[in-house]
Amino acid sequence: MRQSQRGQVDPFIVMDVMEAARRAEAAGRSIIHMEVGQPGTPAPAGARAALARALEQPLGYTVALGLPELRQGIAALYQRWYGVDLDPARVVVTPGSSGAFILAFSALFDAGDRVALGAPGYPSYRQIMRAMSLEPVGIPTTLENRFQPRPEDIPEGVEGLMLASPGNPSGTMLTLDQLRGLIGAAQAQGTAVISDEIYHGLSYGERAHSALEVSDDVFVINSFSKYFSMTGWRVGWMVVPETHLRTVERLAQNLFICPPHASQVAALAALDCTGEADANLATYAENRRLMLEGLPKAGFDRIAPPDGAFYIYADVSALTDDSVAFAAEILDKAGVAVTPGVDFDAERGRTMLRFSYARATAEIAEGLARLQRFMAAR
Amino acid sequence: MRQSQRGQVDPFIVMDVMEAARRAEAAGRSIIHMEVGQPGTPAPAGARAALARALEQPLGYTVALGLPELRQGIAALYQRWYGVDLDPARVVVTPGSSGAFILAFSALFDAGDRVALGAPGYPSYRQIMRAMSLEPVGIPTTLENRFQPRPEDIPEGVEGLMLASPGNPSGTMLTLDQLRGLIGAAQAQGTAVISDEIYHGLSYGERAHSALEVSDDVFVINSFSKYFSMTGWRVGWMVVPETHLRTVERLAQNLFICPPHASQVAALAALDCTGEADANLATYAENRRLMLEGLPKAGFDRIAPPDGAFYIYADVSALTDDSVAFAAEILDKAGVAVTPGVDFDAERGRTMLRFSYARATAEIAEGLARLQRFMAAR
Repeated sequence: MRQSQRGQVDPFIVMDVMEAARRAEAAGRSIIHMEVGQPGTPAPAGARAALARALEQPLGYTVALGLPELRQGIAALYQRWYGVDLDPARVVVTPGSSGAFILAFSALFDAGDRVALGAPGYPSYRQIMRAMSLEPVGIPTTLENRFQPRPEDIPEGVEGLMLASPGNPSGTMLTLDQLRGLIGAAQAQGTAVISDEIYHGLSYGERAHSALEVSDDVFVINSFSKYFSMTGWRVGWMVVPETHLRTVERLAQNLFICPPHASQVAALAALDCTGEADANLATYAENRRLMLEGLPKAGFDRIAPPDGAFYIYADVSALTDDSVAFAAEILDKAGVAVTPGVDFDAERGRTMLRFSYARATAEIAEGLARLQRFMAAR
Repeated sequence: MRQSQRGQVDPFIVMDVMEAARRAEAAGRSIIHMEVGQPGTPAPAGARAALARALEQPLGYTVALGLPELRQGIAALYQRWYGVDLDPARVVVTPGSSGAFILAFSALFDAGDRVALGAPGYPSYRQIMRAMSLEPVGIPTTLENRFQPRPEDIPEGVEGLMLASPGNPSGTMLTLDQLRGLIGAAQAQGTAVISDEIYHGLSYGERAHSALEVSDDVFVINSFSKYFSMTGWRVGWMVVPETHLRTVERLAQNLFICPPHASQVAALAALDCTGEADANLATYAENRRLMLEGLPKAGFDRIAPPDGAFYIYADVSALTDDSVAFAAEILDKAGVAVTPGVDFDAERGRTMLRFSYARATAEIAEGLARLQRFMAAR
């Protein structure tokens, strides 16, 4: 049977790492997981309790934009986090941030349109674009610029610009001034801005800044996956300009009908579980401290200190030009699973590794000890 | 900010009906809901109990294709329902059937490709296609042909053909011979076939036939929403040819990461809850009997008796050429919410109404009594 061109998206290399790690564990080996991009903690207890209580209800379709109370609760978060007064009508609950990307790209871009984005970056940005017949245009960023694009890097005439702060795989953030510069430059040439803020809430110095602090004329995407520790629940959100609300609503009705109702119930309660979320943050902060101390000791010292998220992207060009083989060697000899950079940057990622520190602190400490022993013996 | 062309999909007219019904109820009126396309029952008790037990687990991301046990359970359903021996590797768990359509269209079609489908039909087929830069090509079907396309109706050279049996809004089914004829004719000209089987399990005479009984070289889409009464859970599935598995897996990884984990846990348990599902089916069967008796008495006698699903599509051309106004009048004067045909067939739907009988039998009986009184007084 026929296959489309746009369906031929790249595989995730990290899946091979995860499968190799699974096989090693099945064979009885101990593996420390620094490859995964999700918390090891469950959804907040309050969120799970709220869902348990709601299980007697039918939980049929909700309206496409999500439960009104949830949209209000998310809008209130913008006041709490950024001091931004946000109309709940502009909040769209989505099936994860993944669903938000699909909605944003559908509402903004037609087949053949070009969308710029920093490289390295979250691999699915590019693949979703390709599946929707859009052309991703990579902006090569550097360690010196902390893996974030600058206004002068925006390609002329692109229809869209994706920003991500804190970024994945780097964990680096844009300052408010940098955000202003990028959004201003994009808007000046009619380029639509989509800001991925999925790691907000997880920062270790200054708080992250939202694109909504700069302009109302942007698409802002976020999720309950990371700060609220609800990855598998598939509930995220998007803030859209008032001008695009009806378009996004119609698209959401047709593309998704609604986000999962049970997950929305849990997410609504999660908004009040900041104690538990902040306890997780404290764990990541301690993990990050250990990583910034331990990775250089192991020999991984070419890194941009991460402002947020739970990743560190390390330049290992002095050690290898084949990060896939190097990651396999680290898994095999050190018993630590890490992600080769090629998922985030096909070319330059061959000399980069991503380390995740989203798991328990004891695991991180043990992983660092293993990495140090491995590198000392190499 | 820019808006895309493809984002300009049609609104759902039924949403206006639902909003008008909601306002009437808020004002204290009693409204019978024959407009909604979902069961009034919750997910099976066993499904909810299984999720309640699982809530202590982290419920992080699952693999993109879904929990292996769930894929096995769905494959077993094909043996039970159709006597088809299905490799679980070909089963893809999706975020509702909506997610399955997005995956199927991405894997099969490129921007500009043409996909044929019967009119009337489920409105989102067309809108998802438009959002993905595909061109839906309507096949006008008739009451005489029970609102299903015939092999000779397939437009020459289309890249795809969507089938739906039982269909929405008609509830009519294709026989195994008709299914063979359509799939054979499509395949003979290289047209990919996608079979929407979301209402399987809900039939009132012979069982519905799956396209998988005819060919392995088809995409088959189904869901836990209808027979298993789990609409808001957003968990469906798709069976794909072996040739397309890797493509669909990569697309699913990038477009959705995974279907909602909590919903997958509930769905797995739902597979064993056939007692409860069949009790719901018995309710629909009684509702259908009442409808087929009561609608003609009210004057709605131009209908194709529905083989499955929980809808009746009625030709009201003798009564109106503006089904939107007529539905508004029925809501206002009879206190019954029904769906105008224009959502399913923009042109010819102006003289059609869809009646849903998915709610409790007492509601259906009351609705029919109201319709009879209203029509007698009209």
